[in-house]
Formats: sequence, C-alpha cells, structure tokens
Amino acid sequence: MNPATRPDWIAVDWGTSNLRVWAMGADGILAEASSDDGMGRLLPAQFEPALLSLIDPWLSDRKTPVIACGMVGSRQGWVEAPYRAVPCTPVDRAAMVQVVVSDPRISVHIAPGLKQPKPADVMRGEETQIAGALALNPGFDGVICLPGTHSKWVQISAGEVVSFQTFMTGEVFALLSQHSVLRHGMGGTGWDDAAFDEALSDALSRPDRFAARLFSLRAEGLLDGLLPDQARARLSGLLIGIELAAARPYWLGQAVNLIGAETLSRAYARALGQQGASPRLLSGTDCTLAGLAHLALQTEATR
Amino acid sequence: MNPATRPDWIAVDWGTSNLRVWAMGADGILAEASSDDGMGRLLPAQFEPALLSLIDPWLSDRKTPVIACGMVGSRQGWVEAPYRAVPCTPVDRAAMVQVVVSDPRISVHIAPGLKQPKPADVMRGEETQIAGALALNPGFDGVICLPGTHSKWVQISAGEVVSFQTFMTGEVFALLSQHSVLRHGMGGTGWDDAAFDEALSDALSRPDRFAARLFSLRAEGLLDGLLPDQARARLSGLLIGIELAAARPYWLGQAVNLIGAETLSRAYARALGQQGASPRLLSGTDCTLAGLAHLALQTEATR
Repeated sequence: MNPATRPDWIAVDWGTSNLRVWAMGADGILAEASSDDGMGRLLPAQFEPALLSLIDPWLSDRKTPVIACGMVGSRQGWVEAPYRAVPCTPVDRAAMVQVVVSDPRISVHIAPGLKQPKPADVMRGEETQIAGALALNPGFDGVICLPGTHSKWVQISAGEVVSFQTFMTGEVFALLSQHSVLRHGMGGTGWDDAAFDEALSDALSRPDRFAARLFSLRAEGLLDGLLPDQARARLSGLLIGIELAAARPYWLGQAVNLIGAETLSRAYARALGQQGASPRLLSGTDCTLAGLAHLALQTEATR
Repeated sequence: MNPATRPDWIAVDWGTSNLRVWAMGADGILAEASSDDGMGRLLPAQFEPALLSLIDPWLSDRKTPVIACGMVGSRQGWVEAPYRAVPCTPVDRAAMVQVVVSDPRISVHIAPGLKQPKPADVMRGEETQIAGALALNPGFDGVICLPGTHSKWVQISAGEVVSFQTFMTGEVFALLSQHSVLRHGMGGTGWDDAAFDEALSDALSRPDRFAARLFSLRAEGLLDGLLPDQARARLSGLLIGIELAAARPYWLGQAVNLIGAETLSRAYARALGQQGASPRLLSGTDCTLAGLAHLALQTEATR
C-alpha cells in the first residue's frame, strides 16, 4: 500500500465464523480483506496474530485505530465487552472496551453488544449495523429487521433501541436442510417462489400447524415427487412464516428496514410485502461500516 | 445354544441406526442380541452378513424363519418392501417381501411400511408396533401415539389404520440441543418437571409464539443463569407442546395408547395428562415383538 493511502482507521467485523477487515480513508474504503479466523476457533492469545495477518500491510509508524464489533467481544472472545441494557442508543463510544495489544502500531476498541433483561435477549454485532442504519437515515423511527442465522427484530424510537427479539430461523433452516432427514429431498441451492409463498401463507395463517408440516416435505418427496427446489423454498417459507407470525407486533403497520445479505433480505421483503408491508432494504456491509465509522469518528474526537 | 432351545423363528427390528434380533420360542424370548449395523451404514450386500453375525449361534439345519420390520425395507435398505396405502390393516402377511439369501438355514421376510397419499405421510416399523398393540389389545379403537425421532399419531378403527401424521419432534430436539447455539446451555441429561410443564403449557396455548421462544433459552442462560436441566426440559416442553397443538384433533377426547421408550412416553403421558387425557403406556419392544409374532404365525400357517 502506498504510504499516501494508509488508512485513517481500520474497521473490523469479527463474528463466530469469519473475520472481515476494511482499510478506511477519508473517502471510504481503501482496501479490504477477510479470513475464516472467526471467534469460534480462536483462543484469546490468537486474536492479535489473526488480525495482524490481515491488516499488517496497511500499518505504518503512526498508531492506527482499529474499531471492531461482533462476537469478538463475547465472553469466549478476545476481551469481553459487557452488554449494555436497552433502552439505550445502539452504540456508545464510552462503553467501548480497549484491548491491550502487543503491537505498538494499533489501538483496538471493541463495541459491546446489547441485552434486554425481560424478555431475556442479547445481540452482538447487530447493534453496530443498527447504529449505521441510523447514521445513514437520521431521524428514523420504526422497526429494523436483521435477517440471518439469528434474525433480530428491533424497535427504534428517538435514536434508541427500545426492545428487540431474536429468532433462530437461519440456524434452524441450516440444521433441518443439511442435517435432518429432510436433507435427502433438499439438495442444491435452487428455489421456487410459488412454493415459498404458499408455505409462508400457510405458516402465517396457521402457525399452530407448523409442527405437522415439516415431515410432509419428506413424505411428499417420497410419494409425490416434490422437487428439491420446492422443498427448500417451502421449508424457508414455513420457518420465515412462523417467525413473522410471532413477530407480528413488530411489523404490523410499521415502517420496516431490512438489513442483511441481499438474497435473504429479498425473501423477507417478499414475505412482508405479501402482508401489506413495504420494507426498505439496506446493505448489511454498508450498515456495519457506517456504524463502525460512527464509533471511529467519536474515538478520534475524544482522543 | 442348546439344540433343544433353538428358536422357532427370529424377530428382527432393523432401523436406520440399530439392528436388534430376538430368538423366539413357544414361550417367548429365548435370547436377544443387537448391534449398530443400522440400515443407514450398510450396502445391500452387507445386510445378510450383518444379520448372520448376530443370529448364527441360533441357527440349525432346519430352516428358521426370520421376520423383519423397519427401515431395512426402505428403498435404501436390503430389499424394498413397497408401502401399503391406508386405510388398511397395519400389517398383512401377503404383502411381505421375501429376501433372496445365500444361507440355506434362514428364510427372510420384510414387513412393508404404510403410506398415506394425502396429506402425504409414511411410516416404516411403527406399523408392526401398531399390529402388536392391536394383538395385545384386541378390539382397540382410538388413537395410538408413537413418540420418537419421528413421532407418529395414528387413528385406528375396526382394526385398520385410518390416518396418521408424523412429527419430527425427536429429531428437532436432538439437533437443537446438540448442534445449535442452544447446546451451550444444555449439557448433561438432567430434567426439570416445572420447566417442562410451563413450556408445554405456553406452547400449547400460544403455538404462534413458538419461534420467539427458542432463543430465549440461550439468552436466559446468559443473563438469568437458566440451568441446563431447566433449559433441556423447556426445549422438550416447547417442542412437544407444538406437536400436541398440531395433533389436537388426534387426542382431544380420544382413548390414547402411547407406544415407545419409557422415559419419552412418560413425558408425553405427563403432557397429555395435563390436557385431561389419560393415555395408557405400552412398551415399544413388547409391541414390536407382538407385531412380528403376528406375522410369524401367519407365515407359519401359510407355508
């Protein structure tokens, strides 16, 4: 990297399975890198080397601030960044935890997650995306949904997270489609919109019948030739359907922003659209970077 | 084995994960054996050796009938025994499929499973347990529930299976408790009746909120010190609760017989008892053997 383009700061999204880093300059992203050195496979002493292996080319003699979010701040992570309790702003510079590092070229801060005492719930990483969404859309009041392994529904008012609820939809889909008996009829990555729509509508209108619908995917594969694309889409529709059924107080009559990977967000948007909602889609990466930038600017200002 | 006690016939319960065999005489069980040579790990040519490795000591020059049920008769099994369509008697000697074997000391027949065209559903193995339950309780009309990896609810009338429905409750419990994020707060094999009861009641009365309840097990573990025994029992209560919610037409106001492993059957009996039902518990092994004996007697009579 040309010395003239060394980053002002480095953004880090460090989840359970992946590590993503961005070299950030005045005009945005200068460079980016990633690895599978997720929190889940690292011991505390391995975090700094894992980070340096990606960002070393970007460093200079001047100390570069590194701002990280995600599971890196969990009890099993690098350093625990204790949860902040809602209602509160999604992020707060004063609550960031500084990590003691060996390399003098970096200073590292980790953003804490949020907790909700009752009903008990927690998030790590999404709070930074929420902060980014608010930075990109000042004054937003309403609901943010972050589809994913653990989908979150978040009520925002006056710049604060008021309440939130987690659904294990993505993880349950992965387990059922890859590790249960249903995997036999669900190969590939194909899709069928009609099967998704029908299952979604069925699950939303009769969530009490959900448990009776799962095995039908296997049985219809055996008896009626249900195709893998149809089976995958129907399983997704059933699971998103019971999520929407339980999350109805969050989205009914509300302005909803969806933050996440594009394919998954589009499935949620389609589902919500059929229920009369008109969600807006925001890029997960854009929101993560905007949230980390918000913290980085504050960090600079308070040094 | 003393030649005087060689079996009249051999009973075989051959599932996906296990192979169980019994040497049967005029007064019942003479000997039994088992292995983990389940259907899931065998190629067609490996079935006969796997069977002989357990039953060889019981064989004599006289040809011994072997009657098998379970996944051994699936398309991926030893020889496919095509499903019979309900409504029909649970088993039928004429529909058994004879396997061509190399060893002249045995003759092998496999009982076919049942299929229900609409709503699509299938069973393999349970039909033999149902036949056994009917042999042990002649004239029974009502509902049989077979809790397990894939729980079955079965409507019986005039000796026939009228309809049935499969729930993946046991498999989903295993996946969530052992392979999802919930596993972190769910170690051991402990139990908590109060936690089970509360979750069951909650899931039965508000099945639409099921999806919102799963992650609370993890969050309460992190924030409120929910104990592993409580978390396990609550997950079980939630999953059995949504099964009972969807299976309500089967058990409401009906005479219910439960067939299965004792611990699991007791959980179902407790759950149904709280809803005003008084199910009777039957041993899964007793029913399997009674069903296979019913087929063996018919086989003898028609030779």
